[in-house]
Amino acid sequence: MTTGLAVVMPGPGADSRPRPCELREFPLPELEADSALLKVELSEICGTDVHLRDGRLGGVPYPIIPGHVSIGTLERIRGTICDVNGRPFVEGDRVTFLDVHRTCHSCWYCLVAKASTRCPQRKVYGITYGIADGLTGGWAEYIYLKPGVRCIRMDGVPSDLYMAGGCSLPTALHAVERADIQFGDTVLVLGSGPVGLSAIAFSVLRGAGRVLCIGAPDERLTYARRMGAEYILNFADHTPSTRSDWVLRYTDGRGADVTIECTGAPVAVTDAMRFTRDAGRVVVVGQYTDHGETSFNPHQDLNRKHLEVRGCWGSDYSHFHRAIEMLRVPRAAALWSSLKLERYTLSQVNEALADVASGKTIKALVVPHR
Amino acid sequence: MTTGLAVVMPGPGADSRPRPCELREFPLPELEADSALLKVELSEICGTDVHLRDGRLGGVPYPIIPGHVSIGTLERIRGTICDVNGRPFVEGDRVTFLDVHRTCHSCWYCLVAKASTRCPQRKVYGITYGIADGLTGGWAEYIYLKPGVRCIRMDGVPSDLYMAGGCSLPTALHAVERADIQFGDTVLVLGSGPVGLSAIAFSVLRGAGRVLCIGAPDERLTYARRMGAEYILNFADHTPSTRSDWVLRYTDGRGADVTIECTGAPVAVTDAMRFTRDAGRVVVVGQYTDHGETSFNPHQDLNRKHLEVRGCWGSDYSHFHRAIEMLRVPRAAALWSSLKLERYTLSQVNEALADVASGKTIKALVVPHR
Amino acid sequence: MTTGLAVVMPGPGADSRPRPCELREFPLPELEADSALLKVELSEICGTDVHLRDGRLGGVPYPIIPGHVSIGTLERIRGTICDVNGRPFVEGDRVTFLDVHRTCHSCWYCLVAKASTRCPQRKVYGITYGIADGLTGGWAEYIYLKPGVRCIRMDGVPSDLYMAGGCSLPTALHAVERADIQFGDTVLVLGSGPVGLSAIAFSVLRGAGRVLCIGAPDERLTYARRMGAEYILNFADHTPSTRSDWVLRYTDGRGADVTIECTGAPVAVTDAMRFTRDAGRVVVVGQYTDHGETSFNPHQDLNRKHLEVRGCWGSDYSHFHRAIEMLRVPRAAALWSSLKLERYTLSQVNEALADVASGKTIKALVVPHR
Amino acid sequence: MTTGLAVVMPGPGADSRPRPCELREFPLPELEADSALLKVELSEICGTDVHLRDGRLGGVPYPIIPGHVSIGTLERIRGTICDVNGRPFVEGDRVTFLDVHRTCHSCWYCLVAKASTRCPQRKVYGITYGIADGLTGGWAEYIYLKPGVRCIRMDGVPSDLYMAGGCSLPTALHAVERADIQFGDTVLVLGSGPVGLSAIAFSVLRGAGRVLCIGAPDERLTYARRMGAEYILNFADHTPSTRSDWVLRYTDGRGADVTIECTGAPVAVTDAMRFTRDAGRVVVVGQYTDHGETSFNPHQDLNRKHLEVRGCWGSDYSHFHRAIEMLRVPRAAALWSSLKLERYTLSQVNEALADVASGKTIKALVVPHR
Repeated sequence: MTTGLAVVMPGPGADSRPRPCELREFPLPELEADSALLKVELSEICGTDVHLRDGRLGGVPYPIIPGHVSIGTLERIRGTICDVNGRPFVEGDRVTFLDVHRTCHSCWYCLVAKASTRCPQRKVYGITYGIADGLTGGWAEYIYLKPGVRCIRMDGVPSDLYMAGGCSLPTALHAVERADIQFGDTVLVLGSGPVGLSAIAFSVLRGAGRVLCIGAPDERLTYARRMGAEYILNFADHTPSTRSDWVLRYTDGRGADVTIECTGAPVAVTDAMRFTRDAGRVVVVGQYTDHGETSFNPHQDLNRKHLEVRGCWGSDYSHFHRAIEMLRVPRAAALWSSLKLERYTLSQVNEALADVASGKTIKALVVPHR
Repeated sequence: MTTGLAVVMPGPGADSRPRPCELREFPLPELEADSALLKVELSEICGTDVHLRDGRLGGVPYPIIPGHVSIGTLERIRGTICDVNGRPFVEGDRVTFLDVHRTCHSCWYCLVAKASTRCPQRKVYGITYGIADGLTGGWAEYIYLKPGVRCIRMDGVPSDLYMAGGCSLPTALHAVERADIQFGDTVLVLGSGPVGLSAIAFSVLRGAGRVLCIGAPDERLTYARRMGAEYILNFADHTPSTRSDWVLRYTDGRGADVTIECTGAPVAVTDAMRFTRDAGRVVVVGQYTDHGETSFNPHQDLNRKHLEVRGCWGSDYSHFHRAIEMLRVPRAAALWSSLKLERYTLSQVNEALADVASGKTIKALVVPHR
Repeated sequence: MTTGLAVVMPGPGADSRPRPCELREFPLPELEADSALLKVELSEICGTDVHLRDGRLGGVPYPIIPGHVSIGTLERIRGTICDVNGRPFVEGDRVTFLDVHRTCHSCWYCLVAKASTRCPQRKVYGITYGIADGLTGGWAEYIYLKPGVRCIRMDGVPSDLYMAGGCSLPTALHAVERADIQFGDTVLVLGSGPVGLSAIAFSVLRGAGRVLCIGAPDERLTYARRMGAEYILNFADHTPSTRSDWVLRYTDGRGADVTIECTGAPVAVTDAMRFTRDAGRVVVVGQYTDHGETSFNPHQDLNRKHLEVRGCWGSDYSHFHRAIEMLRVPRAAALWSSLKLERYTLSQVNEALADVASGKTIKALVVPHR
Repeated sequence: MTTGLAVVMPGPGADSRPRPCELREFPLPELEADSALLKVELSEICGTDVHLRDGRLGGVPYPIIPGHVSIGTLERIRGTICDVNGRPFVEGDRVTFLDVHRTCHSCWYCLVAKASTRCPQRKVYGITYGIADGLTGGWAEYIYLKPGVRCIRMDGVPSDLYMAGGCSLPTALHAVERADIQFGDTVLVLGSGPVGLSAIAFSVLRGAGRVLCIGAPDERLTYARRMGAEYILNFADHTPSTRSDWVLRYTDGRGADVTIECTGAPVAVTDAMRFTRDAGRVVVVGQYTDHGETSFNPHQDLNRKHLEVRGCWGSDYSHFHRAIEMLRVPRAAALWSSLKLERYTLSQVNEALADVASGKTIKALVVPHR
């Protein structure tokens, strides 16, 4: 075995229109010291990949091999790779790895601001690494785990369970951590995509008294309920005003204690501010790509409300680690295991992207080996 | 002595145009149990009073006696009034009092959210109390201190020093507390009115490494420098883009660690978000009245920046108490004592309002007795 | 109906030996404005009551009517009593009330330190109110709810479920709030009495990855498991050293992320410090009475460990309110409903106290009416 | 120039008695990639060095070259060394460097607990590096700055000013950061050694209303006053009870809001708990070496007090960086510039150690070059 198949996403064409992904054969890399080759069992196809296909993210070094969250087995290790407890991995271990790589721990953001998700050196497998960097995406038979990649042994966590959460796990855990939920709080989640669903689950696990979800379509709202939302509302059936009334009905007329925005639509940020009670908190995690501006009234929506609005970008190792620890807890595992997975081969990724884009599938996975 | 003079503000007329204040004579009240009569030495005329004159605040029970921050001596006490240490006041004590009254400590906001500045029961002397409530404003010879009013003995704090800060003291202290400044941080203050100036001073006292101020006009910026701003910029001489460049120049190209908005202009909130570094904090305290909407890009300005934006409304007793404690500290007192005061008689308040509105005076005081 | 029966605890005798409680008939009070009479359905007998019997608490105005946590129906209301949402109660409402009364919201601790559980004015029904204050304890047919008492309507919360938690609910919620548990943390609870059991449950509900409990006897540890402890250890079967080894075994050799001390034994505080990982947190909530000193090594146990140790005293309305909100959540209710209740009549309280003291019953309730 | 002189500390002898330091000549190292040679201008002799001489620290790889905080010029650079802003250093730059080296940013403490001062990989120049690691201490003509050492350019910060604070700067800043001082708080500092003095200064700079210091001898207390302590008490002249009375006198009978322990005596930790008000905070930073146990009453001193006690270990780059930023602020620089420095040659270090041990000098510096 000296080569492996991988899907290459060319990025949008000169006319800005999406171009299809192609399957290519790559030579397997010579391993550097303290690196490894991961044989991919499952990799995720998520909304970010649709954005990537459509060229809506900046700084992407097309062509790339997509797939930022994957699970597999360590096929080969050169040198030593350890987990955070200092225990070395061995070939055959089933692991996942943090897609964020090269956080420098040397710059002002890492060391002074302690905001490592804003480190300018960081690179993300499947997003800001391209084929020039080697086998750096999960839609492939093998991934090259470069020196410094942080892996976690997945003993006790079924691969399907982990991939049901996928990249939404650390993202939503980070958002919920930042939401500072108190016991008994009413949490409103805007959006019922993967991040919204995981935000519901983590809010429940954090001690919320009640979780509300406004999203679409109905099928996803069914999942929202399974993840722990007590009340759900289909966004499409309501106006801003009737949505607001609905929130007030379940919050003694005050608005949610905490709102977590997971939609991607700029106006949802304004909605989040308006649907939240005075002195409450809004976490904005859904604005991963640029869809333009929104307006709000700083007197009414922010100052007089004594509101806090917290942007939440990316995740660091702690979020990744803690999310996986939670999957080892049966009451948490039960939530994510309720999500339905769709499997695609490497040759079917264009179809998978279309299914994710249309909302037809809640969680699409690539199965590179048969 | 059975009557006292007081200024009555009628509120805007039917045509929404401001109407002048008038001087009237009022009978002095019968004191209820545990109430007192304060002989006013000085009362403040601030920007809020201009808003009141012009009818730009909601919920004001015109006609009112303005003047929310005042200092004077206790002329008469009926029953017992104690400070927070349980020491009773005696007639002749020089005191000030918290303008916020009737915070209920019984409602959901007070007891569960612990956000007492959003208590729906709270009333403010000189703003949301009117003449129907008695002598409840400071532009008067006497103020009726109702049961439950919280006074502070001002031994050791000169009246002029205290009034130089006036209502901006607790407001700005609250904002700076909420700004979570770290040692060495660069703090950007937008606005050079009284709240902006006090925000500069408290930022300095909190351990900021550097304070920047963008404001106007030049005379106020001179005060900004005296309060501790290392660099100042006249707002009027610059475009948003050159203002941004100016901030980046003093922040290693990153933006301020913390920005405190004290302007009143909605667009300043958007500016604040853009002038702040990734993972920094914005406190919005200047949007006390409604001047309409502003727009921003939630992807660029909030989510990807991992920014926190914190509205800051009003103040509670702790802010008032701590601000006065700080005035007992010589290095702090030196800052506020640099501000210039203008004195007006009760008959001159319309002129005083005009001077405050035009920015001609930085701090106008009413002197009711000669 | 003009009189009601109540149990009177005389306090220890001149020889410091406990004296038995007696049943007495009291006239029902004339209601002041905005007060009420509660017909008691159930009242709690807890470890504090054993301390009271034995004279181990300071500041108790014997003779008293014990019973600080109770549930019942509003028999009579004079004037208006509202919940925190401003909704008036009506006669016949099933309610509980916060045993802490007269928090003054006027003193330095309430207003400046914002540490209202240290307010010197506060009084506790059944503990620091005595018969001189009227029907102020729950081991009685009726309780006099004085003006200012804070009630909660218990619609949707079965009386048995609420009393299964009883006073441990706000106490443990406060402790867990103060423990600052992060997702996936390992929480060690020392003690398996009511507070320890509720601390286990709230830790689970807060997102702990794993809860460990060291307690005794075996029957209570069985409850610890039902409340969510993954591993349990009988204190009596082990030495400090083997207890430490046990904790290290489940924490990758580091010690617990968070330890919550709920035992009452001073040495347990030292144990808590030693069983916790570097940079972890210890909450001390079990030292409600004075059992003397303990010693520790500040270099090894505190400074080099970068440890935080947090005393936790009493609870305020927010803890009480949030705890009851959590009982409305089915996954939380399921935990407390697993606890076994023992019922006693008013005539059997001496027996009940003996059963609580011996650990024979985990939760004893007085049923004043038949 | 191919060799450099350095002081070697042999560590205590077989009889546990301190042995004198000796001067030796070392070959200058071949520089690895991205390393540098620092020509030492000044290095510090502090209390830790006395502990090192006397063998009171664990894990020290004797013989060592002491001197953990130093300032000098970059004599030679191989490859590239950048500051946290990515700006490369050049030969001739005057710099200092963080003595903590090799924090791994890969282990559980670094990445999950985010408690990098407990990283097991970290090494400290002059303390846990020995001569086997090369020129790794400041009592030398040259220091070898290994790859990964973090330097700061000292333009605008006089060498004497920086060394007046020395290692106490990041230590005390970390302690004060952890003390969570609020505006107007009364801060009690126990101890008047270098860490205590810097803790006084940072407390003042953080917005304390008043700083008290209990220390000894009188000369150091004179410095305490210069650093900003409003009231001072000579420890030696008082009993625990009269010390307590003294604290209560300046704190309205409540105790300090915050106490920072900087003494090294275990009993001072108990004192700190007793001298602090209910619901206050104690930071323990003085217990750097093991001087045995202390005892306290967990009911009275911790639980009923609702106290927080926070151990504080070491410092990370942020504390070092922020401390130096503060030295660029004139009002802060004025504080440390009031401290008196004593200079010693490399041949005089044994005398310097004796002077530091006896308290004869507050801040001793080694001047390796003449």
